[in-house]
Amino acid sequence: MLYFRNDYGAGAHPAVLEALCGSNAELTPGYGTDRYCRRAAETVRSLCRCPEAAVHFLVGGTQTNKTALAAFLRPYEAVVSAASGHICVHEAGAVEQDGHAILRLPAPDGKLTPDLLRAAMAGPVNEHTVVPRLAYISNTTELGTVYSGAELRSLREACSELGLLLYCDGARLGSAMAAGDTDFSDYAAACDAFTIGGTKNGLLFGEALVIVNPALQPGFRNCMKQQGAMLAKGRLLGVQFEAVLRDGLYLSLASHANALAKRLAESLEKSGIPLLVQAESNQVFPILPDRAVEALRQDVEFEVERKMDGARTCIRFVTAWHTAEADVDALLELLENLEK
Amino acid sequence: MLYFRNDYGAGAHPAVLEALCGSNAELTPGYGTDRYCRRAAETVRSLCRCPEAAVHFLVGGTQTNKTALAAFLRPYEAVVSAASGHICVHEAGAVEQDGHAILRLPAPDGKLTPDLLRAAMAGPVNEHTVVPRLAYISNTTELGTVYSGAELRSLREACSELGLLLYCDGARLGSAMAAGDTDFSDYAAACDAFTIGGTKNGLLFGEALVIVNPALQPGFRNCMKQQGAMLAKGRLLGVQFEAVLRDGLYLSLASHANALAKRLAESLEKSGIPLLVQAESNQVFPILPDRAVEALRQDVEFEVERKMDGARTCIRFVTAWHTAEADVDALLELLENLEK
Amino acid sequence: MLYFRNDYGAGAHPAVLEALCGSNAELTPGYGTDRYCRRAAETVRSLCRCPEAAVHFLVGGTQTNKTALAAFLRPYEAVVSAASGHICVHEAGAVEQDGHAILRLPAPDGKLTPDLLRAAMAGPVNEHTVVPRLAYISNTTELGTVYSGAELRSLREACSELGLLLYCDGARLGSAMAAGDTDFSDYAAACDAFTIGGTKNGLLFGEALVIVNPALQPGFRNCMKQQGAMLAKGRLLGVQFEAVLRDGLYLSLASHANALAKRLAESLEKSGIPLLVQAESNQVFPILPDRAVEALRQDVEFEVERKMDGARTCIRFVTAWHTAEADVDALLELLENLEK
Amino acid sequence: MLYFRNDYGAGAHPAVLEALCGSNAELTPGYGTDRYCRRAAETVRSLCRCPEAAVHFLVGGTQTNKTALAAFLRPYEAVVSAASGHICVHEAGAVEQDGHAILRLPAPDGKLTPDLLRAAMAGPVNEHTVVPRLAYISNTTELGTVYSGAELRSLREACSELGLLLYCDGARLGSAMAAGDTDFSDYAAACDAFTIGGTKNGLLFGEALVIVNPALQPGFRNCMKQQGAMLAKGRLLGVQFEAVLRDGLYLSLASHANALAKRLAESLEKSGIPLLVQAESNQVFPILPDRAVEALRQDVEFEVERKMDGARTCIRFVTAWHTAEADVDALLELLENLEK
Repeated sequence: MLYFRNDYGAGAHPAVLEALCGSNAELTPGYGTDRYCRRAAETVRSLCRCPEAAVHFLVGGTQTNKTALAAFLRPYEAVVSAASGHICVHEAGAVEQDGHAILRLPAPDGKLTPDLLRAAMAGPVNEHTVVPRLAYISNTTELGTVYSGAELRSLREACSELGLLLYCDGARLGSAMAAGDTDFSDYAAACDAFTIGGTKNGLLFGEALVIVNPALQPGFRNCMKQQGAMLAKGRLLGVQFEAVLRDGLYLSLASHANALAKRLAESLEKSGIPLLVQAESNQVFPILPDRAVEALRQDVEFEVERKMDGARTCIRFVTAWHTAEADVDALLELLENLEK
Repeated sequence: MLYFRNDYGAGAHPAVLEALCGSNAELTPGYGTDRYCRRAAETVRSLCRCPEAAVHFLVGGTQTNKTALAAFLRPYEAVVSAASGHICVHEAGAVEQDGHAILRLPAPDGKLTPDLLRAAMAGPVNEHTVVPRLAYISNTTELGTVYSGAELRSLREACSELGLLLYCDGARLGSAMAAGDTDFSDYAAACDAFTIGGTKNGLLFGEALVIVNPALQPGFRNCMKQQGAMLAKGRLLGVQFEAVLRDGLYLSLASHANALAKRLAESLEKSGIPLLVQAESNQVFPILPDRAVEALRQDVEFEVERKMDGARTCIRFVTAWHTAEADVDALLELLENLEK
Repeated sequence: MLYFRNDYGAGAHPAVLEALCGSNAELTPGYGTDRYCRRAAETVRSLCRCPEAAVHFLVGGTQTNKTALAAFLRPYEAVVSAASGHICVHEAGAVEQDGHAILRLPAPDGKLTPDLLRAAMAGPVNEHTVVPRLAYISNTTELGTVYSGAELRSLREACSELGLLLYCDGARLGSAMAAGDTDFSDYAAACDAFTIGGTKNGLLFGEALVIVNPALQPGFRNCMKQQGAMLAKGRLLGVQFEAVLRDGLYLSLASHANALAKRLAESLEKSGIPLLVQAESNQVFPILPDRAVEALRQDVEFEVERKMDGARTCIRFVTAWHTAEADVDALLELLENLEK
Repeated sequence: MLYFRNDYGAGAHPAVLEALCGSNAELTPGYGTDRYCRRAAETVRSLCRCPEAAVHFLVGGTQTNKTALAAFLRPYEAVVSAASGHICVHEAGAVEQDGHAILRLPAPDGKLTPDLLRAAMAGPVNEHTVVPRLAYISNTTELGTVYSGAELRSLREACSELGLLLYCDGARLGSAMAAGDTDFSDYAAACDAFTIGGTKNGLLFGEALVIVNPALQPGFRNCMKQQGAMLAKGRLLGVQFEAVLRDGLYLSLASHANALAKRLAESLEKSGIPLLVQAESNQVFPILPDRAVEALRQDVEFEVERKMDGARTCIRFVTAWHTAEADVDALLELLENLEK
């Protein structure tokens, strides 16, 4: 069975596992107050060229988004997001559970733009409406599209103009950086806060939250604890992030995944299989006849994105740090035969 | 200054005020456990032909919607509403504050339909998504459109088929019943719960919540108290509702308002002034040149619905139980002169 | 039947009712943006000698406490209160519903003291605990006891020292001012925010919230709306508060109630009937043999405070602005006969 | 430095780590839908002799308590707990954040009793109060005391009589079972839901929640996801629990820790050092002169429980699965020398 279902199907990259095993017997203070977390946070600040950032390590993505937004917003403040944003469709109402509305904007490629933001803020905002206060983006997006550095900067400008905080969910930040022209410091420059995703890029689990805006920093650990988001053996997060961030592994894992996705996408396009959106990172969304989709299930694990019409379905292939070149070859061969 | 801003600009209808004054010196138990509330609830049940309904009296509309939805839903359950629904745009995120997402459906005339509901439920619902559980409608809608009895019944069917509760916000229920072919019993038959609005139809304040579905009844008074929605001198609500419901005043006040709106709308249309939607109840939405709107502000109080384009604006005229025939005449004369 | 059950059994004082009737036909803007509310707020600021205070008018006490605390606190911040505080025992968990823990301190007379506060804050406060941030007091307390001006000032000092906000629930503020040595300005000087209760002192309903601390003022109306706590016909609150605050009626009504309670308490003590706490305001808590309590139920409405032991019960008599001298006489006679 | 600070200072037991490493390369479905979780859940059901139980695997203790209570309770329902309960003092208000009050009962040894429950429920419960609905206990308690099987059964009876759910936080369930006369099936028989703690007994992280009461089972995974409590690579939890539960390792690790604590406690008592409570499991609470406590800090990591008076402090020693016999010897020698 070929595995293109997602980028969190395997455990950790061997280097991460080794770091965990190597430190396993150590006795450290709990809750992220250990030296591994301190060092990993220092590394993050250094990569971001942002010595004043607060860096926190949490276990999962929904947890991180939820805790951050609950900590950053007053009760009546709302979030603005592309309708396809992870917080809109795959987090079971986690943001709303903490009391905040999400305004969902139509964005066919999954990306917010200054124009979309301005349109969303053009209507009346008063004490009878929710007050949009934070723009949520993810890079890469749910559709695998990628914000460039220029796009980030223009969003930053629009947010400042509109009185919005800018928050970037970086569950796949490695993939975004490997695919585009941004590095860690671009996010620190553009965002009030952003995350560096580990779960989907070689860690067993873990998201680093970087809070750049000093006004959003106080009390965050209290919020983490209250949300059940503070890992007792917090060093497990520091150890893992240190392992991937210290020497560039984080980016090289993402580059590997992106490269395979690129090869896959190019071959698909050559075969005349249309893609829902251009494949820019490690996700590819081919549109196939329903029969082909059914046939493919025999040999490949993947997810269905959506029905296109009565006869065609858009599915999703995800490549990961552990995907082998040979798997892509095998998948392409299967697809070629399906077509015939 | 002519007043067409809304239907809650004045105090209470004289009959309501008289009932309040007449009972003022009485000493009764608090929190709605008095005989006025008991009698008013009995009247509601009788009008609804639903002897098993639980009837509660609350002060305001947002409060009632918020308390009801918080009481009816489990944490991860969501609400489905027309995007123009009151809970979406005029309640400052009250429903979300209690933890529930609202899925906003596009409905140009403000009305949900079975097809819209089915489309909203067609996507995957699982543990990663919110779970739509309650369809929120209002009758009349925010745009003054009216659900017919047949439409209510078809929504009921769709909700039953889809596993949704049906909740009707009746802030302007009198107007809906006066304009259409429904009476109280149609709401009891179609809805799991609905409200009978007093604030906009002759009371100082007050909304009656009718919980038809027995599964939704337990614990509601606890929720009311917890939400700060239980009036200490609860009898004020019973006294007022009794005054308007006992002898048909509730409907005749609404009919008066509807009739004036109808006259207004027909004259506007005769003058060639386009309306945003057909005027079915006590709200009229003419689209006027921006200059005309500005000129009108000198003599008339009204609200702006939205900018249509660079040159025209849709405004809203609301008639109420206290609007005088002469006011409509005066408004029409003003509009005629504006046109010239 | 004699009525000593509570101070919200009747409607409004005639002067309040007259003001409501007199303004009934006027058409005003909604939601408290009318001139009555503006004038009433100005009067409150003037009485408080606090021109910078934000003044909001809400309908009920639980609603006001809940909305204020939700607006003032960050998610992990907690409230400190006497265990007998209204928010602890009579608000159905309204404060907790908005996410805040209440630390309940034992205070036999219902009053917080600097020592109690210091003791409560002596334990470790860190990211694993809730962070006490607001001291809740009520004046008068649930037991009818009264904070003096000196006590308020010493609480203020303790709160400043401990990093706590001081909030005073003034549901019976009139009674407290009439019984003690404080006036409105003492609360503005000592508290970050406090309320002026109308429901229990001559209004149909209504609590004025005075937010003295400028840091707590922004966004409050958004919170009100979100909590369903913004009355559509908001002027009803302005009209009523103006009627009682303009010319001292608020205090004279409370003085009347206090004077009757004092007479009642003194007679009880002369008859050798013990009181749970000294009667300082308009509540009296006699301890009676269970038989006497049962007999009394035939002729008097009152509430039970608590069972003292197997044979005696503490009950509560409340006097109000509408209680007649003759009612107290009648009650005393009944009690005298019971004893025999 | 000797480590007696807590039982989560090290990583995982070698057998757990080995299982993680051995399964690392496998590709499995996410979110706990894999075969490891299925098998671990089956093992739990079998150990509990409760084939109908729903078993969920979560990452941390606060997260598990919070998610469970939020899922089980209606908005106005409250929790009853010993004042020293973990949810009262070490979870930063996590339960209240989801809207539920906790009634804190005084229990010097950390244990609820039927009498305490009955007393807590003796007061009036109505729509103005919170409604106690769930009794929270932990075994072992925060003070290391242990509920026996008979005590569990009598709590079950009291809860059934009082209309309360019984929830047992088993963050140290292994220690409780090793110290007392209970096994997994006793918890399934007595509780509506309980947890099996992994974090403090040999896992990197992980708590298993066993929901016995069928009425509490529906929708739980939705609540997990909404709370950010569903691990993407959920199998990590299944793999770890399987490793300790399959062949009795869970109990033998706890027995080891208990045995060392027992030796430590007996030696302390022989030396005349008083203990705060009898040492029943893996926590020992000696009361030492402040000077001794200070001196000890040079060589030992431990936590302070509380100041006893001006001269003495109660501290806490915790033994764990990884504590060596030699460490206890060394600690005892240090303590002996301090005394001289």
